[in-house]
Amino acid sequence: MQNERYRSGLKKLEEIDGKAGKRVIDSLASISPDLAKYTIEFPFGDIYQRPGLDLKSREIATIAALTALGNCQPQLNVHINGALNVGCKPEEIVETIIQMAVYAGFPAALNGMFVAKEVFIEREIIKE
Amino acid sequence: MQNERYRSGLKKLEEIDGKAGKRVIDSLASISPDLAKYTIEFPFGDIYQRPGLDLKSREIATIAALTALGNCQPQLNVHINGALNVGCKPEEIVETIIQMAVYAGFPAALNGMFVAKEVFIEREIIKE
Amino acid sequence: MQNERYRSGLKKLEEIDGKAGKRVIDSLASISPDLAKYTIEFPFGDIYQRPGLDLKSREIATIAALTALGNCQPQLNVHINGALNVGCKPEEIVETIIQMAVYAGFPAALNGMFVAKEVFIEREIIKE
Amino acid sequence: MQNERYRSGLKKLEEIDGKAGKRVIDSLASISPDLAKYTIEFPFGDIYQRPGLDLKSREIATIAALTALGNCQPQLNVHINGALNVGCKPEEIVETIIQMAVYAGFPAALNGMFVAKEVFIEREIIKE
Amino acid sequence: MQNERYRSGLKKLEEIDGKAGKRVIDSLASISPDLAKYTIEFPFGDIYQRPGLDLKSREIATIAALTALGNCQPQLNVHINGALNVGCKPEEIVETIIQMAVYAGFPAALNGMFVAKEVFIEREIIKE
Amino acid sequence: MQNERYRSGLKKLEEIDGKAGKRVIDSLASISPDLAKYTIEFPFGDIYQRPGLDLKSREIATIAALTALGNCQPQLNVHINGALNVGCKPEEIVETIIQMAVYAGFPAALNGMFVAKEVFIEREIIKE
Repeated sequence: MQNERYRSGLKKLEEIDGKAGKRVIDSLASISPDLAKYTIEFPFGDIYQRPGLDLKSREIATIAALTALGNCQPQLNVHINGALNVGCKPEEIVETIIQMAVYAGFPAALNGMFVAKEVFIEREIIKE
Repeated sequence: MQNERYRSGLKKLEEIDGKAGKRVIDSLASISPDLAKYTIEFPFGDIYQRPGLDLKSREIATIAALTALGNCQPQLNVHINGALNVGCKPEEIVETIIQMAVYAGFPAALNGMFVAKEVFIEREIIKE
Repeated sequence: MQNERYRSGLKKLEEIDGKAGKRVIDSLASISPDLAKYTIEFPFGDIYQRPGLDLKSREIATIAALTALGNCQPQLNVHINGALNVGCKPEEIVETIIQMAVYAGFPAALNGMFVAKEVFIEREIIKE
Repeated sequence: MQNERYRSGLKKLEEIDGKAGKRVIDSLASISPDLAKYTIEFPFGDIYQRPGLDLKSREIATIAALTALGNCQPQLNVHINGALNVGCKPEEIVETIIQMAVYAGFPAALNGMFVAKEVFIEREIIKE
Repeated sequence: MQNERYRSGLKKLEEIDGKAGKRVIDSLASISPDLAKYTIEFPFGDIYQRPGLDLKSREIATIAALTALGNCQPQLNVHINGALNVGCKPEEIVETIIQMAVYAGFPAALNGMFVAKEVFIEREIIKE
Repeated sequence: MQNERYRSGLKKLEEIDGKAGKRVIDSLASISPDLAKYTIEFPFGDIYQRPGLDLKSREIATIAALTALGNCQPQLNVHINGALNVGCKPEEIVETIIQMAVYAGFPAALNGMFVAKEVFIEREIIKE
């Protein structure tokens, strides 16, 4: 019953987010498998499949937006990991977050940076 | 009395935003020249001067954030122009805005796209 | 090349939003027909097709969210029309918007109400 | 010294939110009993008393708004409970939250769904 | 039928906002006189009546919040006028808005400042 | 290598926020000392140095904005402490937060008040 968008979306999700994306999907199984399905189909089966913007730039755009919105820290964690997985340098992630101080204020930038710090420590990019 | 951050900031502002950035600065003269000064010094004298992320990626991050926040349409107009000025392709701008449907919802993406449409028509990239 | 989600989405869009929805779609033609396509497919081809919540309740949820977010007034206009089209009473729309004063503050509720006023005048539900 | 708005508000608060609403009120006693008083009087003594929109629709509107705003998870928890208390079906709550992916993005919908999951597990509507 | 909260609220509204506040109330007459009533009763009949924070500080808090939220420009206009009416100096208003660059980003501060500019020109505090 | 803005900013940060501000700065050392530097230079070296608005009013503006934005609770904690440090009375902080119910809704005000409660208990202004 899985359609093509779902299949290519799941593959893209795994390419970008590795196990973290899969964990989000699994955690929806008991309450809303349909939201999990849409999360695979639309963002990863439609949007991240598109040519016209490379995956690294897509992840920078996502990190910028999630840092600026300021209330999506679990998703920011997943996408900082995703950015590293598709080849963004840690420095590029840090720069993107610093820049959000200009557009969304220092609290948003600081809170985004603390999410990056967690991810970088977990991946042993920096020491605590 | 102009410091080095101001001077290099003004130069960067002109490189990125051309006359549009200057117009914003001028429009503050009668009410708060200090806010104009800070707008040059911190975003353009500090942040956009930094190595570690190229200007094209910085503009993609800014377009993503301003589209997602959804209440900064004058600034989004300036930065879509800025993105084009520093070499982003129209398609990359369109892709960044489409992607925001995922992270900030369809209204934010639609409203961002209508700002891009205005800019693209003005610059004769598309016809009305 | 139009898939089933697109076809049923377009039909649902017309059922709910009448010409207003179509105008939004058309206005994207020159800049991003793909965003138009996604706007039909995901919200109207997937979500508004779902059983489990009647259309009237879906429109009340949408009006509540757009009023609370406060920066989506074109979409709020479309959906206040949509709510009336699917059978919501004007009073139910007014009540939903008043209630947002509790959750998003008085400015959000007032600005939402002024959008409703425009729609109600246009549809001759109230006089100016 | 309790006025009529307070008395009918407290009764409505207990009808909708049961003990959870009362706990919020009690937790304000040491810092701002007046904010507790206003929380009873205006939302529950004024707004939720109004005819023109049934309680189930009011709770759907509130769940939609709190999910879309994305930074009110304690209140979302209380109102998902409230929605169940006044007769909303779990499915209607799930549908309302899924729909917010359209208007506020997937992160908002996902984070709202995880709050619903907690409530549904606590009330043994679903298993972990 | 007007209660005491309404009467003292209307008086406070006129003290703070002068004719501008009254115009907002009047503009709701055809669509939702009840929202007008609540806007007088709760903000002006309850909150702005309270001792413990002087009116000037209350207006500074309101200008800060409305600038930071960024999507309440009609209300920001009314309250910049209100701040001047209760004795805030133009400089204090400008400082409050500049400071929002720190907490909500430069676009929010710039857009808030342009609202202040309109008010200051209208009141002949500055020239265009 | 520390410039004058940094030096006076650090002094102002310590005057306002005491050890809490310093802890935020230190916690950035391993990931982005530059964001720490900007956080000292721009908000505290530029903005909080300015005449034209006294420090108490600046803290009230900040508490209002952070409560209204609703997703900056660590920064709200620091600035409620800061407000007390520069001479705001607990009552003035409580009033500022209550007032945000009007402009940003009850959930924002309630969540802000719970941050104040934590600070007030820690500083033994109130008992749990």
